[in-house]
Amino acid sequence: MASTAKGHGPNQRRVDLNSDMGEGYGRYTCGDDAALLEIVSSANVACGFHAGDPEIMAETFKTAKQRGVAIGAHPGFPDLWGFGRRRIPCTTAEIEHMVAYQVGAALGMAAYAGHRLTYVKAHGALGNISETDQDVADAIVRAVKAVDPNLACLTIARSAQTKAAEKFGMKHFAEIFADRAYTEDGHLVSRKEPGAVIKDAETAASRVVSMVEEGAIITVSGARLKTPIHSICVHGDSPHALGIARLVRQRLEQAGVAIASFAPA
Amino acid sequence: MASTAKGHGPNQRRVDLNSDMGEGYGRYTCGDDAALLEIVSSANVACGFHAGDPEIMAETFKTAKQRGVAIGAHPGFPDLWGFGRRRIPCTTAEIEHMVAYQVGAALGMAAYAGHRLTYVKAHGALGNISETDQDVADAIVRAVKAVDPNLACLTIARSAQTKAAEKFGMKHFAEIFADRAYTEDGHLVSRKEPGAVIKDAETAASRVVSMVEEGAIITVSGARLKTPIHSICVHGDSPHALGIARLVRQRLEQAGVAIASFAPA
Amino acid sequence: MASTAKGHGPNQRRVDLNSDMGEGYGRYTCGDDAALLEIVSSANVACGFHAGDPEIMAETFKTAKQRGVAIGAHPGFPDLWGFGRRRIPCTTAEIEHMVAYQVGAALGMAAYAGHRLTYVKAHGALGNISETDQDVADAIVRAVKAVDPNLACLTIARSAQTKAAEKFGMKHFAEIFADRAYTEDGHLVSRKEPGAVIKDAETAASRVVSMVEEGAIITVSGARLKTPIHSICVHGDSPHALGIARLVRQRLEQAGVAIASFAPA
Amino acid sequence: MASTAKGHGPNQRRVDLNSDMGEGYGRYTCGDDAALLEIVSSANVACGFHAGDPEIMAETFKTAKQRGVAIGAHPGFPDLWGFGRRRIPCTTAEIEHMVAYQVGAALGMAAYAGHRLTYVKAHGALGNISETDQDVADAIVRAVKAVDPNLACLTIARSAQTKAAEKFGMKHFAEIFADRAYTEDGHLVSRKEPGAVIKDAETAASRVVSMVEEGAIITVSGARLKTPIHSICVHGDSPHALGIARLVRQRLEQAGVAIASFAPA
Repeated sequence: MASTAKGHGPNQRRVDLNSDMGEGYGRYTCGDDAALLEIVSSANVACGFHAGDPEIMAETFKTAKQRGVAIGAHPGFPDLWGFGRRRIPCTTAEIEHMVAYQVGAALGMAAYAGHRLTYVKAHGALGNISETDQDVADAIVRAVKAVDPNLACLTIARSAQTKAAEKFGMKHFAEIFADRAYTEDGHLVSRKEPGAVIKDAETAASRVVSMVEEGAIITVSGARLKTPIHSICVHGDSPHALGIARLVRQRLEQAGVAIASFAPA
Repeated sequence: MASTAKGHGPNQRRVDLNSDMGEGYGRYTCGDDAALLEIVSSANVACGFHAGDPEIMAETFKTAKQRGVAIGAHPGFPDLWGFGRRRIPCTTAEIEHMVAYQVGAALGMAAYAGHRLTYVKAHGALGNISETDQDVADAIVRAVKAVDPNLACLTIARSAQTKAAEKFGMKHFAEIFADRAYTEDGHLVSRKEPGAVIKDAETAASRVVSMVEEGAIITVSGARLKTPIHSICVHGDSPHALGIARLVRQRLEQAGVAIASFAPA
Repeated sequence: MASTAKGHGPNQRRVDLNSDMGEGYGRYTCGDDAALLEIVSSANVACGFHAGDPEIMAETFKTAKQRGVAIGAHPGFPDLWGFGRRRIPCTTAEIEHMVAYQVGAALGMAAYAGHRLTYVKAHGALGNISETDQDVADAIVRAVKAVDPNLACLTIARSAQTKAAEKFGMKHFAEIFADRAYTEDGHLVSRKEPGAVIKDAETAASRVVSMVEEGAIITVSGARLKTPIHSICVHGDSPHALGIARLVRQRLEQAGVAIASFAPA
Repeated sequence: MASTAKGHGPNQRRVDLNSDMGEGYGRYTCGDDAALLEIVSSANVACGFHAGDPEIMAETFKTAKQRGVAIGAHPGFPDLWGFGRRRIPCTTAEIEHMVAYQVGAALGMAAYAGHRLTYVKAHGALGNISETDQDVADAIVRAVKAVDPNLACLTIARSAQTKAAEKFGMKHFAEIFADRAYTEDGHLVSRKEPGAVIKDAETAASRVVSMVEEGAIITVSGARLKTPIHSICVHGDSPHALGIARLVRQRLEQAGVAIASFAPA
């Protein structure tokens, strides 16, 4: 990623684009997965606890395979009603077990669908907690490692998740968010505060290009916090979000950054 | 199993004893798993759809490992309220996907618990349907094979399940039931009919010994239907059922039949 | 309803338009309830078993109250994954209890929301079964009567539901479907057969006007089956369905038929 | 309750004994409801969110009616896995709606079963939170009042629940716990601390008699905190707990205190 060459050689700069997918349930749909699969290189697939069911998982994995998109398990809290966004008070042992279960289920469904699961990313409240809570981050990585030590961890840049993956010797790749503002500590500005979400597509896209080129998170004040950046998280749950995702990809490619999975099947 | 030698050599007759376990949910318990693990050689473990949760699965797999008991996935319909005993009308595709999901989850939890999952057996209504419905039996075996072709199938003797496993080239082992009467066609007598369940422990145990020694199901009329018999299904959901299970084991051992898993880890 | 006068007097012909609403769950939405509430006079509101949750129920009841739309409970099977469309094999006692539960919950939420629940209609597979299965139809009506004997039953015209409501002395009103073809027996043509669903809005609307004016179901062959018609069931789960619903209302009003609830709050 | 007369006249001292019941789910059972119904005067019945289902609710209400035991709704968090003991982070609006739903369902099932629901008590984590969180306590009482203003609130003595019931003008009755130690503030000693649970039946029973006779909570230090005491909460989830419940009743009756519901049907 240090190279500035624009050719398709090994030295070209690369980054992954990831997005949540397969978040429907039964008759319910959520987001435009077909459109997202044209944009991203990695699909974080819900595992049936906060969203997703075996039908949707099989379908999402098959389509991702056809489009050459890498797949990861996206385990969350057992909370369909709350879409995994409630911080369910569980012990770290419970979290460890529920992650192992969901990663196993995703591995099974991926094998069934003829694709290979290559990474795990924590969803929603489970992701938020493990950004800063080292015990929970450790529990998640322990579960992933116990189920399959070859899986990579897609972690929030500069988080307890990253430290956990390092501690347990797991492959790990760091993500930043395309449409979220960062505090001076490198954390996401709370959605309750103004400016937390970047709504203008051009602003989001050019900011992502700068972060990737500089290898740093850009905070609200404009400060640079150095960090490896292997992936950009984009969304597809509204036409607006899809527009941002498309422009992020376009601007990165125009800047000579190739979009490629960090963990191809 | 054709040998009549009683020594502990390779020619000793052997049979497996299997039982359903890990059938609680959250705070709820079901059956006396600790007692069963002293009796059986194989544990069919619920996978979270009709019973079981990640806590219980991890605990059951760990304990089975300690006791040297083989473990299998026991997938069922998504029906906690009905304990998997309702014939939920699903397409064969839905059944295939839900079995793949549950087998994957069980493989993940077993790896997490440090044990190795070696077989799959269909639970409750899913087992009943696939005893005779070849399409559903095929769907179940296709799912198992796609997720892990090295898994064995524990099938009801002389059932569509057995034919499905043969058709797809999967290892398979046939079970009979210790406490259920058989029709002249070799199917279970419906629970709605008198005499369907054998309640006397001595009767059940001596009948099992005869069936294993003769390599045949004994029907209500006393007819013999030849079939390989690799496993005996026993229950532990009441002190009475446990008593039958213990006596079946004792009488088999007294007859020189060793109790051993058909698919050790 | 025997009058042909077009004035707004007591003799004007009237009919109700009903539609399923509140069928989302948690973050998931289903259908365009806001648009439907501008068209129909009765809202069948999901009660949390096959769809709906307390948030959505409260919101739907409040909005219906604001728009002057009558509300009914729409109980279904406990099957969120299958959206209540699977025929879950339950005893009639189980069906009776699950209907009582859901009707009670709907009464509670309606009181909470400041609206009054005036009727009950069975959803999905529960509706399909009780169209012809007299035992199930009786169980549903017994449950409704036991919970609140003042509730009306919205029944499928010429069905076992209607007979059950008569048998137990409950107020009942008969519905026909705007977009479904009828067999010569007066039942819905199965969705598996061609022509089961009427897709052209003008065809559907003019057919509804004829059925209301003639007081008869029109079968595939054009035969008339006499029946009281108090309500027309329309759908809102696609822009196309909404278009049909709007045109049905427009053509009825143009024919001098007022749209009004059969059971106003 | 100020009288010291021992006759069965209006001046006899009385207190209610309440216990949680109907806490099974599907095939799962929890506690010995039959034994409890011989001891208590009020049954707090689970409403299907943390435990209970329509079958169990109907059965529990019917049996309570036969035994002359009053019934209350016992709403909890939507958390069957956690048995309602996890503090699910919900908004007060969500709590208000989920309580309204469950109270409505319980009213419906009670009417169906031919009994009359007379009170509501918050279960598990919902009870714990509303003991001290006034906003949550208010939300619960608002929900109860909106659904049926004639229902009584069974509240924890000296809690935010009691203040909420007073604020909204609802009938309310205060309970103490037979087997739990109290802090100097009148709150329950955390289960994590030694001595939190009183395990000796005689100690528990004589302490209850003292508290009822003195109209005061007795703290760990022996201090008396004056409070009306209308009900004693006992448990039936183990033979030991049942033994305490029986002895509490016996010792109260020996002291001339009659056991009677605060809100008979």
